[in-house]
This record gives sequence, structure tokens and C-alpha cells, in this order.
Amino acid sequence: MNSDLHVLVTGAAGMIGQKLIARLMREPRLGGKPIARMTLVDIADPVAPKGAPFKIQTRAGDLSLPGEASAAVADSPQYVFHLAGVVSGEAETDFDKGYRVNIDGTRFLFEAIRQRGHKPRVVFTSSAAVYGGPFDGPVTDDFHLTPHSSYGVAKAIGEQLLADYTRRGFFDGVGIRLPAITVRPGKPNKAASGFFSSIIREPLAGEIAMLPVEEDTLHSHASPRAAIGYLLHAATLDMAKLDGRPNLMMPAVACTIAGQIEALRKAGGDAAVARIRRVRDTLIERIVASWPHTFEANRALALGFVPDKDFDEIVAIHVEDELAGKVPA
Amino acid sequence: MNSDLHVLVTGAAGMIGQKLIARLMREPRLGGKPIARMTLVDIADPVAPKGAPFKIQTRAGDLSLPGEASAAVADSPQYVFHLAGVVSGEAETDFDKGYRVNIDGTRFLFEAIRQRGHKPRVVFTSSAAVYGGPFDGPVTDDFHLTPHSSYGVAKAIGEQLLADYTRRGFFDGVGIRLPAITVRPGKPNKAASGFFSSIIREPLAGEIAMLPVEEDTLHSHASPRAAIGYLLHAATLDMAKLDGRPNLMMPAVACTIAGQIEALRKAGGDAAVARIRRVRDTLIERIVASWPHTFEANRALALGFVPDKDFDEIVAIHVEDELAGKVPA
Repeated sequence: MNSDLHVLVTGAAGMIGQKLIARLMREPRLGGKPIARMTLVDIADPVAPKGAPFKIQTRAGDLSLPGEASAAVADSPQYVFHLAGVVSGEAETDFDKGYRVNIDGTRFLFEAIRQRGHKPRVVFTSSAAVYGGPFDGPVTDDFHLTPHSSYGVAKAIGEQLLADYTRRGFFDGVGIRLPAITVRPGKPNKAASGFFSSIIREPLAGEIAMLPVEEDTLHSHASPRAAIGYLLHAATLDMAKLDGRPNLMMPAVACTIAGQIEALRKAGGDAAVARIRRVRDTLIERIVASWPHTFEANRALALGFVPDKDFDEIVAIHVEDELAGKVPA
Repeated sequence: MNSDLHVLVTGAAGMIGQKLIARLMREPRLGGKPIARMTLVDIADPVAPKGAPFKIQTRAGDLSLPGEASAAVADSPQYVFHLAGVVSGEAETDFDKGYRVNIDGTRFLFEAIRQRGHKPRVVFTSSAAVYGGPFDGPVTDDFHLTPHSSYGVAKAIGEQLLADYTRRGFFDGVGIRLPAITVRPGKPNKAASGFFSSIIREPLAGEIAMLPVEEDTLHSHASPRAAIGYLLHAATLDMAKLDGRPNLMMPAVACTIAGQIEALRKAGGDAAVARIRRVRDTLIERIVASWPHTFEANRALALGFVPDKDFDEIVAIHVEDELAGKVPA
């Protein structure tokens, strides 16, 4: 077996995948060792970024198809970041595809790693979508998983598989339940949660954003940068500290819409805030109300996962990382 | 579609399957309608009991093999009791078989029902083995599932699939987490939990039983008769009352070993109690200590699931159902 450090990223073309790769290009070490190689897997052939301080190999592949998972781990990567998956909306509209990619793809990858026998660290991105309530206060570390979506069900199943493969010694898995990622870069999308990012991102770019819910609506967020920090911390965490429960809710910054708007005002002034249009949407209100609002992620905090400080910092990170530090006038 | 009431039982040759069939032979109705037919499926060809007041068809089949699940539901049974599975110990020693039978078998059955499109009631027996703690008091209805076994993982995954297939309208599923079934009829087995039944069953049959744990050890139990009652209640429960959370912990009678012994004394006298040999086994003590001891099954109780009254009743049910009402001298 090659002892050079080799990192596999599935779902490498996604937003989290791209940011993880960029971060590892800037800080090309894991667990104190220099990264020698990365393999990037995604459905469409992921583009290898230029100027990486290590070799990059790309692979177009659907892990749920025969042989693909084995091929992806054929070189025995010591770190596997399993980010691949069909997103929430698509998993709901295309049941078969969602189950195939999100459940079979994950199981086949885990099984290919088991067959390989080299026992890597596996970091799996789960989601707060595993929670379905009923909620009576903040979600705690021992709260049950009752997802309202096929996406959430697939994540909950992935967590169970990860925990069992880890318990049995097939690999060292850590599952991290990501909260809403805010401010999500890119274009507005149709996700019901899209406005949490839109009301910051669009006004700072001089564009109009729609706000479909009341200003007292409370939600919990992590910046993309904090999320990448969670992934890297999960990759190097001492497994012994997990007490056999390797799936963890990640900490998040709880903030009302009013609080988000005040953070926007600090970064972009009244002009930015004036670009928010209040257009109530009772369907979105109902969906958002069914989500958990706050988390007591005590285990993750005790294990050293570091959240954003507050929503001001979340906005500042967006300005730094996406707008090159400058808010357009 | 045939409107005659047709009931499918998978795992029909197991203890619970046999008792369910016997009960339905005595009370051949479900949801107020007479049962016209039953299909019994198990790995080995299950024996059709004689004298049933309805037609019985048997089928040897492994639901995890291609075509078997579709064949099992080809006649569109309106009630499906999915009891089939590899037991805890075997799922732990044979990882691949456990995953194949307990995960694939369940998923293939659910998918075959979805493809059939007739939306039956599906009752799935889950288990208290889904719980792994850490325990800080009784297990409540919103407690997380962190199984310590591949068997428990498969049950937790089956629950997630059941909930999603139910949410999406593919069938009406109810998952019931059974506690320890005591007094389990038959021979002593090697399960770590075997002694909970042994210390009642063997002494009442004039035989010696080993007690490997301290008398203050607390555990929760349901009689086989109560378990069958849970299955039948789950089959006819109003789905609207489940609030989209169709997996339920079943109520159980909490009792110390000392309490079990006193119940034995009432039924079998000091002579029966004298047949218990105290032989401490620290491995079994450790395993039993890792299990949940008590449950607050408030949802199930509110939904009308009826547990045994106390451990005296559990012993009395054993005497009635297994010993024809008579304790041998």
C-alpha cells in the first residue's frame, strides 16, 4: 500500500466539495501529513483545479452503479469525504433516483471500503433534515430522527450504516449533521430554505431579494467556511472520544430574520436592507415552521467543532470569501 | 382485485409468527372483516397448521433474493405482518447474511408492495435493540437510536424505510419496537438475554436454570401474548393518530430479577425457586447493563396498546399458554 497521503472526495463538484478542495489546496495537510494526491469523484467529470500543490485525479462516476464505488477506492485513500448525493428537492420528486444515489450509493461506497480492507477515515455529511420533531425546545444530542423527506431518510440510513461499519472496524467513520449553510454562494434556487441566504446575498450584490416569512422567524446557520472547518475537524478527530456514537449534530448560529437583516445593515447599509421585499408565502412559512429552529450541539462543541461566532461573522465571511472583501456600492 | 381479506405473514415459522397465526385461527378477523386467506412465508417451507377457518398457502422463500418479494405479495394481501429476519446473534456473526436478509429483504418487500400499488397495512416488528444509549433514565418516545448491533442497525433502517414509504403513500406502515419477550417458550438458547426467560421456564418445568446477574438487575418485558396483541392492534390502528411517526416503542413491564423470582414463587412455590442456580457471568452482566432497562412508551399507551399488568401476569400467561394451565409438581 502506498503510504503517500491520498484523499478521496465524492460529490467533488458540489458547493461544499469545491470549497473543501480549495481549502486543502491552501492548507495541503491532514493529520499533520502533507497530502500527496486527491481523487475527485462526481456524476459529471469534475474539473481539476489548477495550481494544486498535490496530484489531482478526476473521475466521472455514479457510486450507485456496479463497480464504480470499488473503482473510486481502488487506490486505498486514507481519507474519504463522502459528500455525494441527490439534493433534497430532487430526492423528493424522483423517489427511485434519490434512493439509488443517496442510499445505494452510500452503502456501495462503504462496502467497497470494507472490501478494500484498509480502514480509512470516512467523513459523511448528514443533515439537519434528519430531524422531524415534534420539537419542544432545542434539538439535543439524543433527539430522535423522524425525517419529513426521502432525503432526510437517506441521511438517517447513511448514519446508521456509518455507525455500524465503524463499530465493526471496517473504517473510522464520522457523520456530521450540517445545519443550513448560510450565506450560500451562487444563484437563488428553488429550495424552500433559499431565502435565508438570498436576503443577504442578493442585497449585497445590488439585487432585490424576496422575504417570504415573518421577521421573528428563528433559524440556525453555519457559514460555508465553518462547514469546511467541521469536515476537516471530523477528519482528524480522535475516534476514541466518540464513545461509539460517531454521528454528531454540528453547532450552528441561531438568528431571527430580524437579526439577519441587522447583520446585513452593518455590512451593506440601509441601501442593502431596502432591497428586501416582503412577500409572505404561507406554504414556505409552513415548511420552515416544521424545521428545527435551534440545536444544543453539546457533544460537537465538547469535541472541538468551532461554529461561527454570530450572524455578523457569517455575513463577513460571505463578503470576504465571495465578494473579495468588498461590498458593491 | 380480490376483496376477500388476505393476510401475509413473513417469518411465519418463528415464535411470534406461529403465535400470531394461532391467534388469528382462533379469532379469524381483522378490522371487523373475516379473514379469507393467509399466506405464510419463511426461509424453510412453513408448515400450514391444520383446522384453520380460512385458506392457508405456504411459501418457502428468501425475500432478499430476486423475485421473491414480488411473488410473496402477488396476490395483493391487505395486511402484511413482516416478522422475517435473521436473529441478533447470527446478524452479528454473519455480517453479509444479516445485511442481506434484514436490510435488503425488508427493502425489497416494501418496494414490491409499492410496485403492486394496493396500499396495504404493513406491520413491521422492530426491537428495543435499536437503542444504544447513553441512558439517563427511562427511554422516552423521542430518544435517539444508536444500536450496538448490526441487528439493531437493520431494524433502525427498516423503521426509516417504513416511515418514508408510509409518508409517501405507498402503504400504511406501523413499526413496533418489541421489548424482551418473556417467558419465551422452547429450549434455552445462547442469547445473552436468555436467562430472563430461563429462570421462569426451566424451574416451572422441574429443571435447573442458571442466573448470571445480580437480583437487583432491572429489565422490561412483554409476554408473547401481549406481543401478539401489539401486532394486532398495530394492524388496525387509525393511521391518522400516528402524526406521521409510525414507529413506536411498545410498553413493557419493568421488573427486577428479585421481582421475577417472587412471581415464580407464587406460581411454582419454593421448590421452583430452589431450582435457580446463581452463577455470575461478568460478560453477560456487562451486556445486560448496556441495554435500556425501562421505557416510557407514552405514545403507544395513548394509542391503546395494552401491556401485561405485571410480572405475575407474565408468569400466569406462560402457565396458561405453554403448560396448559398446570405447573408440574
